[in-house]
Amino acid sequence: MRLFYLGFCMLLGLSGAVAQRGSVLMDPSDASQIQQSLGQFALLDKSYEDLKQLADGAIAQPMDVPVPKDPAGGYSHEQHKRNYQAIQAAGICYSVSKDQRYVKFVKDILLQYSRLIPTLKNHPQAKGSSPGRLFHQALNDCNWVAYSVQGYDAVYSELTPAERSQIESSVFRPLATFLTRDLESWFNLVHNHGVWAVSAVGMTGFVLKDKELVEKAILGTKKDGKGGFLAQLNTLFSPDGYYTEGPYYVRYALLPFFLFAQAIEMNQPERKIFDYRNQILKKAFYAALQQTNSDGKFIPINDALKEKGWDTRELVTAASIVFQRYGADATLLDMIRQQGRVLLNKGGLAIAKLDKQLGSESPHFERKSVIFSDGPMGRDGGIAILRNGVQQQQTSLVFKFTGHGLSHGHYDKLMLALYDDGNEILTDYGAARFLNVEPKFGGRYLPENHSFAMQTIAHNTVVVDEASHFGGKEAVAEKESGQLYFADLSDANQQIISAKAATAYKDVTLQRTLLMLNDSTLDKPIVLDLFRVLSAQKHQYDLPFYYKGQLIKTNLPYQAATKVQTTLGESNGYQHLWKQAEAKPNASAFTLTWLNDSRFYSVTTATDTATQVILARVGANDPDFNLRPEPALIVRQQWAKGGTFLSVIEPHGHFDPTAETASGAESNVKEAKIIYDTAVATVVDVWLNSGHKIRLAVANNDAASGQSHSLSLPDGTLSWKGYYQLNLL
Amino acid sequence: MRLFYLGFCMLLGLSGAVAQRGSVLMDPSDASQIQQSLGQFALLDKSYEDLKQLADGAIAQPMDVPVPKDPAGGYSHEQHKRNYQAIQAAGICYSVSKDQRYVKFVKDILLQYSRLIPTLKNHPQAKGSSPGRLFHQALNDCNWVAYSVQGYDAVYSELTPAERSQIESSVFRPLATFLTRDLESWFNLVHNHGVWAVSAVGMTGFVLKDKELVEKAILGTKKDGKGGFLAQLNTLFSPDGYYTEGPYYVRYALLPFFLFAQAIEMNQPERKIFDYRNQILKKAFYAALQQTNSDGKFIPINDALKEKGWDTRELVTAASIVFQRYGADATLLDMIRQQGRVLLNKGGLAIAKLDKQLGSESPHFERKSVIFSDGPMGRDGGIAILRNGVQQQQTSLVFKFTGHGLSHGHYDKLMLALYDDGNEILTDYGAARFLNVEPKFGGRYLPENHSFAMQTIAHNTVVVDEASHFGGKEAVAEKESGQLYFADLSDANQQIISAKAATAYKDVTLQRTLLMLNDSTLDKPIVLDLFRVLSAQKHQYDLPFYYKGQLIKTNLPYQAATKVQTTLGESNGYQHLWKQAEAKPNASAFTLTWLNDSRFYSVTTATDTATQVILARVGANDPDFNLRPEPALIVRQQWAKGGTFLSVIEPHGHFDPTAETASGAESNVKEAKIIYDTAVATVVDVWLNSGHKIRLAVANNDAASGQSHSLSLPDGTLSWKGYYQLNLL
Repeated sequence: MRLFYLGFCMLLGLSGAVAQRGSVLMDPSDASQIQQSLGQFALLDKSYEDLKQLADGAIAQPMDVPVPKDPAGGYSHEQHKRNYQAIQAAGICYSVSKDQRYVKFVKDILLQYSRLIPTLKNHPQAKGSSPGRLFHQALNDCNWVAYSVQGYDAVYSELTPAERSQIESSVFRPLATFLTRDLESWFNLVHNHGVWAVSAVGMTGFVLKDKELVEKAILGTKKDGKGGFLAQLNTLFSPDGYYTEGPYYVRYALLPFFLFAQAIEMNQPERKIFDYRNQILKKAFYAALQQTNSDGKFIPINDALKEKGWDTRELVTAASIVFQRYGADATLLDMIRQQGRVLLNKGGLAIAKLDKQLGSESPHFERKSVIFSDGPMGRDGGIAILRNGVQQQQTSLVFKFTGHGLSHGHYDKLMLALYDDGNEILTDYGAARFLNVEPKFGGRYLPENHSFAMQTIAHNTVVVDEASHFGGKEAVAEKESGQLYFADLSDANQQIISAKAATAYKDVTLQRTLLMLNDSTLDKPIVLDLFRVLSAQKHQYDLPFYYKGQLIKTNLPYQAATKVQTTLGESNGYQHLWKQAEAKPNASAFTLTWLNDSRFYSVTTATDTATQVILARVGANDPDFNLRPEPALIVRQQWAKGGTFLSVIEPHGHFDPTAETASGAESNVKEAKIIYDTAVATVVDVWLNSGHKIRLAVANNDAASGQSHSLSLPDGTLSWKGYYQLNLL
Repeated sequence: MRLFYLGFCMLLGLSGAVAQRGSVLMDPSDASQIQQSLGQFALLDKSYEDLKQLADGAIAQPMDVPVPKDPAGGYSHEQHKRNYQAIQAAGICYSVSKDQRYVKFVKDILLQYSRLIPTLKNHPQAKGSSPGRLFHQALNDCNWVAYSVQGYDAVYSELTPAERSQIESSVFRPLATFLTRDLESWFNLVHNHGVWAVSAVGMTGFVLKDKELVEKAILGTKKDGKGGFLAQLNTLFSPDGYYTEGPYYVRYALLPFFLFAQAIEMNQPERKIFDYRNQILKKAFYAALQQTNSDGKFIPINDALKEKGWDTRELVTAASIVFQRYGADATLLDMIRQQGRVLLNKGGLAIAKLDKQLGSESPHFERKSVIFSDGPMGRDGGIAILRNGVQQQQTSLVFKFTGHGLSHGHYDKLMLALYDDGNEILTDYGAARFLNVEPKFGGRYLPENHSFAMQTIAHNTVVVDEASHFGGKEAVAEKESGQLYFADLSDANQQIISAKAATAYKDVTLQRTLLMLNDSTLDKPIVLDLFRVLSAQKHQYDLPFYYKGQLIKTNLPYQAATKVQTTLGESNGYQHLWKQAEAKPNASAFTLTWLNDSRFYSVTTATDTATQVILARVGANDPDFNLRPEPALIVRQQWAKGGTFLSVIEPHGHFDPTAETASGAESNVKEAKIIYDTAVATVVDVWLNSGHKIRLAVANNDAASGQSHSLSLPDGTLSWKGYYQLNLL
């Protein structure tokens, strides 16, 4: 049988009389190097075996190219997805093995597609402004093209001119035309969809030797550079490499970014695409990795599914190309070993070699304290992650003061999130979506994504008068951003950052200052959070803390809604919160302690005589049970001219249910007080049970870091130079 | 310094003129074998290192024997706990190393205790009928004695008669007297506390060479065998080894059971204690392991904390003694490797050798389908676990029809719980308690443990007229049990079991039949659940299914309580449930689908025109937020003469958020109908989307397995012999 096969394939090869041309998307020397290296490096072998299994599995099944019918998660959707993955896998397997079975599979299935595609109109389940043909949205069609064209490219030299002509004229060209002509304005959008679109079309252009398509992909359909790949590289990233839609979407976009860049490098090396914009692709890659928690999950700001981590397949591709183009980095092995595979190219081979060479001696990936600017010029605010501790024990404080982040952006200026010991502690809800779960709204974003998850009250930041930032209007929000006020992350044990958002509300300025403090008297760093609001008018201010875990205690009593629960409000996300309890702490600091995994955490918030504290839980007005029932502490103030929320966030103690030990379940914060608060400066005192006192003074309107300040306080005069003064007593 | 130490100790040794006596709790040959084997077996080395670290850590700290003051979790409580662990560890370290530092530590700290203990009255935080002296409850005092006496025994030969006399007369003897005299009736109780008490006193008796104490420990204070160790062995276990309080408490009791048995074997080998009652200790050990889920967590029936698994320290001791007394069992390595240590005795050494020898080739522990009887004679019902699949992929169905299980028992006759892929799918709430978390009611069982977790409505079983089984009265429940009706687990793909509870309600008989069915057309086994209730009177019947995960869809609409939520009832646990939605399916089967981890699950319940379906969530009337907000589907019927709840429980499909794939989110059950239901028999039909039909007929009053039945059904006559008939079409 095997002999027969071989003979048959040789015959085919002879009869074709084909003009030979190598792959234009994969360097032929990559394939030969991989082939020679098989059997030597576990990671490489596994990667090849995975692809081979995928391709062989598809070959073993009856071929099925169904008429598009179902939404995401449905059969036809999933089958077309399986097909494009199999086409790509078979192509690569052919490149490495030269086994003609793979050629036959790619050819046969693409010929089947060549009969289907010309018959297609917009997908019957298409909704919105970018309908697909094979799928309900064009984005998935782009995925199909980007994968399939790689498979076609790999077997190109084995096909007859007639087969090529049939496949190109009835598969790739009509899809490229559909994307660039029918969806022209969408194709030119600067957005993760746009990246997929230009990469799919650009790779098609290279394979079809169609310079016009390549140019449109690189410069936009009008070739004016307002759309296309370079525009994406220029405007989606800040100079630091922060991707404006956030880490969940950069994860998705990095694959087409790197794939198309790789194709450009092979075919137009003179563009030096990997050096473009001071190696923006390298910065983008590393910035994305820094935006993971110590468990590798991406920080779920904006629309984001929390399950997504750096083990996602998109980063497999990016990592191998980074190794190839920007040099080996052994600290990436932490991630790559979790991914369990590499790309079958020189980069992947280098990784597999290094993996074997270093074994358990490889250095760990280091997550550092970072501030990334946002916006193409780096002027649209940014995001900071303050970190303390190493690896899994790390405590990480996320502080977001970016621009809006396009259509997936949330109204969450100056929000914070806290991670500790690999766990979410103060959470960002992420997106309301069950990706590809058909019964949940076709797997798309749920209505509650807009009505709750995007709204300000769903985030750990201030809401004024129960209205979201920028009135919850994307067009308005897109024009604005937070702004970094000052930061000093140079001392790991005294990291401080302050940012402002002056335009989120018409007549209120928001300013938040976060200090992450650690010293030998503490187990874990604590966070001082000074959220200042300034306005000429009276307003209601709500500051929520969504905490993950089980409430253990509060230091003061509250009225619980034990028999009847009602919603906290009527709109802007408030309608989705059950009001579970409220308290009037009456000028004593209020502390809420919860348990998460093996540690206790507390938020202590300074209060005045008018402060109201609300305990709420997500889930009201949610008839389809689309939301997760997560709890929040909300601090509510009614201030005539603004004021400052002072909160101390604090990991403490230890809980080990297996060893049956629990210790330090009580907060270490004895008192938290605002002792001075004007437009000029805010001064707070925090006393710990250990007897230590922390005094933080922040200048609220400092023109420069050298300005002198002097305040008369009850206990004497406090003088300092610059933005802030920290005294530890 | 070291030399001085040695000299000092030799002097002591000389001056003591001590009558030499070896340890009576640890075989001296154990210690020498361990010593000779160190450095050869990783598991042994680690176990010794752990103990050494514990002992050395305690020695390095200033010694602290505080006056008892705090409840569980507080400083003095935790310090006395640390002390007894250190005393035991130091004793063993001395036995192995002969390092006199350990002798000095044990001696010094016990002498400190000898000054404290005679001054003690009942603990200031003591509550309830068994107050402790060193701790708030006597149980913890027993822990202290059981551990500390081992340390004392190990260094006994190194102490002067005066030191021994001081320690015995002011530490161990007063505590033994306190336990056997002041707390005599508690000491004689047959209960996990009692096991700790007799073991602590019995080991003390051996060490103090006090035969009287030993006899009291073995036979009860009156030496009549009504209390004491043998009574515990006789009555706490069924002949199968099922422990009447359930697996969470047997985990706790196995340690003193095995420790004291080991001491008896050393000092009174003629008792053949390890052969006692047909090797009941071996049966108890293996029965406990079978009552774990595939992730090693104990099934949380009765009062139980879900975090507890077979990696708990109590099972470290039991496993090593099982190895020593009942022979090597390589399948225990799965568990022991998770525990990461062994006891420093011959058993532990044998394990460490086998661990090294087998490496990754060791066989896995196999969780089987089991039925354990309950009660000393095996006549008080029992518990079954039906299993299908291997290791982590196993599906396990728990079915409980035991006796009450003493003071920690729940009112949950005929309850079920389902596990799949290592996850809880249909859950048992377990206990409402945060063990040792001081701010949560001193770490004790919370009030909601009684008001909710124990009540029938907190379990997946039928509640009649919103009242718990046996009126929620322990004294009544203790006299009753469920009864196995029939079972056939011989075919892994067609396992069936049926049990009855005739006395849970005055005029209602409960009968539940569970069929776990798998075949080549199914991914995973499905469960048919026929819950029949029979009564001469009209009643309301509620059958809850507490599901873990996110609701994905229902097949029929419901009215959701979106703006106001109220409690489902007033008492018996109902007051703790928020009513979130209700539906009147009006004779169409109702299906609820949820997502748990990487799989979808559905419950489809047959309905008639009067059926009401309620969606509820735990958390009402819980002002301290002591409960977890878990969801439930409750099927409600009002039947004049009883009827049958037919439910199909079904894992299906797959969800992979990393690969972004979802499939099979819809239930495969097309229809579920009760087609015959009388006091004589119940017949149900379940149609699957695949076209398959399952017909199950159950004889409701079969005198014997051979009885013939013939029913006239709409589609013909159904005849069968015996308890049931299963037809697959």
